[in-house]
Amino acid sequence: MSRDAYSEGDLRKTGMALKHDREWDYELERIVEAIEERGATKVGLQFPEGLKRRGPAVADDLRALVGDGVTFMLSGQPCYGACDLDTYLMRRTDVFVHFGHSPMKESDKIIYVPLFSNVDPFPIMEESLDELEAGDVGLVTTAQHMNRFEEMADWLEARGFSVHTRRGDDRLTHEGQVLGCNYASADVDADQVLYVGGGKFHPLGLAMEHPEKTVVIADPVNNVVTVADTEKFLKQRYGAVHRAMGAEKWGVIFCTKIGQGRWETAQEILDDNEDAYLITMDEVTPDRLRNFDMDAFVNTGCPRITTDDGPRFHKPMLTPGEYRIVVGDEPLDSLSFDTFHGTW
Amino acid sequence: MSRDAYSEGDLRKTGMALKHDREWDYELERIVEAIEERGATKVGLQFPEGLKRRGPAVADDLRALVGDGVTFMLSGQPCYGACDLDTYLMRRTDVFVHFGHSPMKESDKIIYVPLFSNVDPFPIMEESLDELEAGDVGLVTTAQHMNRFEEMADWLEARGFSVHTRRGDDRLTHEGQVLGCNYASADVDADQVLYVGGGKFHPLGLAMEHPEKTVVIADPVNNVVTVADTEKFLKQRYGAVHRAMGAEKWGVIFCTKIGQGRWETAQEILDDNEDAYLITMDEVTPDRLRNFDMDAFVNTGCPRITTDDGPRFHKPMLTPGEYRIVVGDEPLDSLSFDTFHGTW
Repeated sequence: MSRDAYSEGDLRKTGMALKHDREWDYELERIVEAIEERGATKVGLQFPEGLKRRGPAVADDLRALVGDGVTFMLSGQPCYGACDLDTYLMRRTDVFVHFGHSPMKESDKIIYVPLFSNVDPFPIMEESLDELEAGDVGLVTTAQHMNRFEEMADWLEARGFSVHTRRGDDRLTHEGQVLGCNYASADVDADQVLYVGGGKFHPLGLAMEHPEKTVVIADPVNNVVTVADTEKFLKQRYGAVHRAMGAEKWGVIFCTKIGQGRWETAQEILDDNEDAYLITMDEVTPDRLRNFDMDAFVNTGCPRITTDDGPRFHKPMLTPGEYRIVVGDEPLDSLSFDTFHGTW
Repeated sequence: MSRDAYSEGDLRKTGMALKHDREWDYELERIVEAIEERGATKVGLQFPEGLKRRGPAVADDLRALVGDGVTFMLSGQPCYGACDLDTYLMRRTDVFVHFGHSPMKESDKIIYVPLFSNVDPFPIMEESLDELEAGDVGLVTTAQHMNRFEEMADWLEARGFSVHTRRGDDRLTHEGQVLGCNYASADVDADQVLYVGGGKFHPLGLAMEHPEKTVVIADPVNNVVTVADTEKFLKQRYGAVHRAMGAEKWGVIFCTKIGQGRWETAQEILDDNEDAYLITMDEVTPDRLRNFDMDAFVNTGCPRITTDDGPRFHKPMLTPGEYRIVVGDEPLDSLSFDTFHGTW
């Protein structure tokens, strides 16, 4: 997507420019071991969008280590999260490596390389102390910083905090981990939560899901401390709900990606509204919806497409909860963040 | 895609504005019969891009005919041709209807509705006689006008022409049919070919594939007669080849769509060029390639993405044949149109 595509209210722009060089641990030895162990001749590599340009160099390094006879295939499918697992490439390769996200589906064939960050989180955590009140504090982070989670908790305890952490639900692999669609690890007995990690994507979702908590952001990548402010986010959601009032024809999106299918939610809407039409797709993009003659859409797939990319669609795009507000099943003040719970 | 996305040299713009209302035969009775026969509760409907907005009305008509208990699902996957068969939706429905294209894959579950056009082709064929020379003429058309193909041939014969038609190869379902990627039905003993059908997408491909033949276009949809002119098309191809000269890092695209996988072609390039990297994907779009740090791409998938959408990509995108020219395996004057032959 070109930069021009961003509008003022476009919440994808909340990640700041990279100020520190990051180096990742691609765990090449573990991959080579698996290739040799299984006598693999086809190896698939899938990188998140932001790291796709590193793919060829990683493939070169691996080629040098395993010799001829192994074909490396880079996934060209869009990849923004664990749900974007390229199952086609996975099925057609002997070893399939997914970089940067926690396991979505377990299989002997898949190697998950978390890509732990080597950025030191403690200097920025030190700065974040100014924003925290003494006493109870929740602590969460992303897959990239998971390897230092315990150290972070100890560090806070050593400074007198009572640190609350939990694993969340089955959707989350690690204690203290958050996903774009799941903040159950922040369901802790503390009015404030410290998020350690890059960008605002996760802490904004966290603050939307837990509006009663103060979410302090210690961002070791961009070297800033901020407090999550959901005002713009909320305004946009109310704006989308408002614009969808009076919509007659509804497109109900059922996402076919692993981990995003909420069939019952979709079916309920269809059962109650004869002007609702089920549309199935994997990638939910503005281009794909433009040719459908609908007044509004309700997305039962990834909530972050709805909330973060919403302004890019030609018609209002709502979460299932927001849809219920528009059709009068729920009051306006029930508006809340859409999350995915439980297992895939 | 917004209209703004079209550049001057963008060959997708060759289809003229619709001047005649078209009505299609959706063959609802045949669909209802299949639903009842199989006791289907989930029915998938897939329309080509240009007809997606008719989908909800078709679903409404079907709902009225079959009563409650059947859920209709509209495919939201991009659909420009027979290769775009939504196999996900197909697998998850009891009856799956693909509108507007010839069969790509046969299955008891799939109903192909060709959507025959009701536009009368003979008035415009009458006008096309001015462009045709007496004697031998080839005749081709698309799936939408196949139902009147024999009539067309008879009509030309009655006017003194010696009409040459053939089925082409296994990729083509019907005698005289052309696809965007296959013009074997025009391999006939005639220096001129009459194409009867809408738009310039097919006849331009035809003229590129058969540069020795004059391709006369009788377009009953837009009510115009023209002669296919490949100059712009050719200029663009030579331009792309020129811009790719000196490229070091090559992305070799392997398309995972049914009917588009040319594995050996891809593998050959990889074997001979250590700066070539295999990238797999279903939809080949500019967005998906932007994050790969390549100097040029060679697309082993749909040739029409390469030739017609080429200008929209940030780096030169070549056909396998054009790639061989750039790396010096073939002379520049070997440049030819990339087609798919044989079965899927």
